[in-house]
Amino acid sequence: MKKLGSQTIQFDSPPTILECASIVGPKEAQGPLAKYFDKTLDDEFWGEKTWEKAESKIIKETVNTVISKSGVPLNQVDCCFAGDLLNQCISSSFGLRELNIPFFGIFGACSTFVEALTLGSICAESFANNVLCATSSHFCSAEKQFRFPLELGNQRPPTSQWTVTGSGAALLTKSGSGPFVTTVTPGKIVDMGIKDANNMGAAMAPAFVNTVIAHFTDTGRSPNYYDAIISGDLGHIGKDIAVDIFRSQGYNVKSNYNDCGILIFDKKSQDTHSGGSGCGCCASVFSGYLFKELKEHKLKKILLVATGALMNSMSAQQGETIPSIAHAISIEV
Amino acid sequence: MKKLGSQTIQFDSPPTILECASIVGPKEAQGPLAKYFDKTLDDEFWGEKTWEKAESKIIKETVNTVISKSGVPLNQVDCCFAGDLLNQCISSSFGLRELNIPFFGIFGACSTFVEALTLGSICAESFANNVLCATSSHFCSAEKQFRFPLELGNQRPPTSQWTVTGSGAALLTKSGSGPFVTTVTPGKIVDMGIKDANNMGAAMAPAFVNTVIAHFTDTGRSPNYYDAIISGDLGHIGKDIAVDIFRSQGYNVKSNYNDCGILIFDKKSQDTHSGGSGCGCCASVFSGYLFKELKEHKLKKILLVATGALMNSMSAQQGETIPSIAHAISIEV
Repeated sequence: MKKLGSQTIQFDSPPTILECASIVGPKEAQGPLAKYFDKTLDDEFWGEKTWEKAESKIIKETVNTVISKSGVPLNQVDCCFAGDLLNQCISSSFGLRELNIPFFGIFGACSTFVEALTLGSICAESFANNVLCATSSHFCSAEKQFRFPLELGNQRPPTSQWTVTGSGAALLTKSGSGPFVTTVTPGKIVDMGIKDANNMGAAMAPAFVNTVIAHFTDTGRSPNYYDAIISGDLGHIGKDIAVDIFRSQGYNVKSNYNDCGILIFDKKSQDTHSGGSGCGCCASVFSGYLFKELKEHKLKKILLVATGALMNSMSAQQGETIPSIAHAISIEV
Repeated sequence: MKKLGSQTIQFDSPPTILECASIVGPKEAQGPLAKYFDKTLDDEFWGEKTWEKAESKIIKETVNTVISKSGVPLNQVDCCFAGDLLNQCISSSFGLRELNIPFFGIFGACSTFVEALTLGSICAESFANNVLCATSSHFCSAEKQFRFPLELGNQRPPTSQWTVTGSGAALLTKSGSGPFVTTVTPGKIVDMGIKDANNMGAAMAPAFVNTVIAHFTDTGRSPNYYDAIISGDLGHIGKDIAVDIFRSQGYNVKSNYNDCGILIFDKKSQDTHSGGSGCGCCASVFSGYLFKELKEHKLKKILLVATGALMNSMSAQQGETIPSIAHAISIEV
C-alpha cells in the first residue's frame, strides 16, 4: 500500500469484502431496506433481560452469521476490529468474548464501522488472510445512556436522530474477487463549535465534507467518479448542510449522494425526525443493502463515509462542543 | 511483516520508537519513578474546572511534548492512535481535536497503550513514516465514573487499585536506530468468571498469561529471552496470581517479571492498596521509565504487555463477569 497525498492510502492488492451480515430491530424491519437484512427482530429485547445484553446478542449473532455465510473457519480469522456506542464498548467485548481470536477494540462513535474496515484492510494487505469487522447500536440502550431513560417519555426535538437497533459485520480477505477496498481516507477530528447534542447531523457534516474533499484531492477523483457517495448517519438535516458546504467549496454532489440514516427509515411513515444514526446504522445499511448492490453490480464504485460525534453525555453538560470525525473508504467491483 | 504462529506478527523492518513523553499527577510525583517523567502536576485540576477537562489537557500536553522533543513536524505525522477510560473516550477526542492529523480512536481499557503501539507499528511498517500513540487516565475522573464520587469518601477494598493520573505518548517512525518494535502479539478476550469490579488484577491475570504464552509459543522464545517482562497494571494481587498461573503451565517468570502498577507507587509509603492501574499507568511508566532504560541500554529486550478489563460500571450492576484482554509487544535495542 502507499500514501496518496496527505491522508489517503491506496492498496496495491486491494482486499476483498468476502461476505457481510446484518441483524436489525423491529423499527428497522418496517423500513424500506427490511428485505435486505439477514434477520429482523420482533422486539428490542430478543429474549434478554436488558437492552445492553440484547445489543451484545445482536452483534454476537451477526458475527456468527457472517462467519457461517463466508465458509471461513473461525480459526483462520487473524483478528477482529469491533466497537459500539455503549460506555467502554461493552456490547462488543461481551458479545464477542467467546470468539477466541485477537481482538482490537475501537471507538469512533458512529464512524466505527468504516474505522474497522479501514484498519482491517490495512491488516489484510499487510499480514492477515482474514479480518472480521463488526459494530452495533441499540435505540433503547443509546437513549438511556446518552439522553434520557425511555420510561420518562421525553419529547425528542425535530433535529434529533433515531439510533438504529442493529449490527453489521464484514469479513475482509486478502485475496478474492471483490468487491475490493481500493483506498481508505481516515479522517481528522473537526469541531466547528456545535453544542446541541440533539443535532448530531449539524455537528458531523463539516467532518464529512472535510474527509471527502481530502479524498478527492489526494486521489484526483471528482464526485462523479462514484456511482454513490454514502455518508454514515448525517440524517436529513446533516445531509442538507453537507450539500451546502460542498457547494460553497465548488463541489456538486447532489445527484449521487445519499445517507444511511435516510435510507434505513421511511420519512413519511416512520417518525424518526432527522433519520437514523448509530454504529449499527452504517454497518447494517452497508452489510445488508449496499454490499448486495455491489455484488450484483448495480453499484460499481462507492465512497462509504461513516461519520461520528466524539462526545458523551457529560461533556454536553459541561458545556463542551462536539468534536466530530468521518472515515472514508472507496469500494469498487 | 509476517504472521508467526497463531497470533504474533513479526516485522521485517521493525519500526523505531523515536521519542516518548509523559506527564503525571501529584501522587505519581511522590512515587519512585518521579524523576523519569517530563512533567509532574501539583494538583489534579491543572487549572481546569473539571477532572475530565484536566485529563484532556494532560493528554494534549503530553502529545505536544513528544512532538516537540522528537523534532518531527506535526504535518509529517501520518496518523494518531489514542484512547482512554472515560465514556466514549472523550479525554482523547477533546484533548487531541486540534491535532489536525488522521485520528483512530481505540478502546482496550488499560491495555490501550500497547494496542496503540501494535496498530501504530503495523501502520509504520506498511505505509506511515510517523505514527503517534497516546493514552491517558485520571484517578478522580475514573473513580467518579466507574465507582463512586470522591466526595462520598467511600472505603476502597484491599484488592482495589489506584488509577494513575497521567498520560504517555510515543512517536513511532518507519526508519530509525531503535528501540525497535520487533514483534506484536495482540490478545484474545479471556473471561474466567471474576465478577468483583474491585479486583481487576484477578480478572486480568489470566488474559495476561494467555497472551504471553501465545507469544512464547509463536516466537519460540522463553521467558529468559527478555531482560524484563512487564505487565500493564495487574498490581500486587494480579501479579501474584499471574506468577501462579505461569508456574502451573510450566513457566518460571519470577526473576524478570514486574508490573507497571507496582513500579509507579511505593507500596509502603503510598497507600494504593494493590497498586496502580489505568490507561495512563502503562503509558507513563513505559514512556517515562522503560523507554529511557532502553535508550541507555540498561534494558535491551523487553516484553511489554498491557492488560485491560473490558467492563463498565453498569455491566457489574447487571451481574456480568469481567472480560479481559492483554496485548504484548517486544521492544529490543
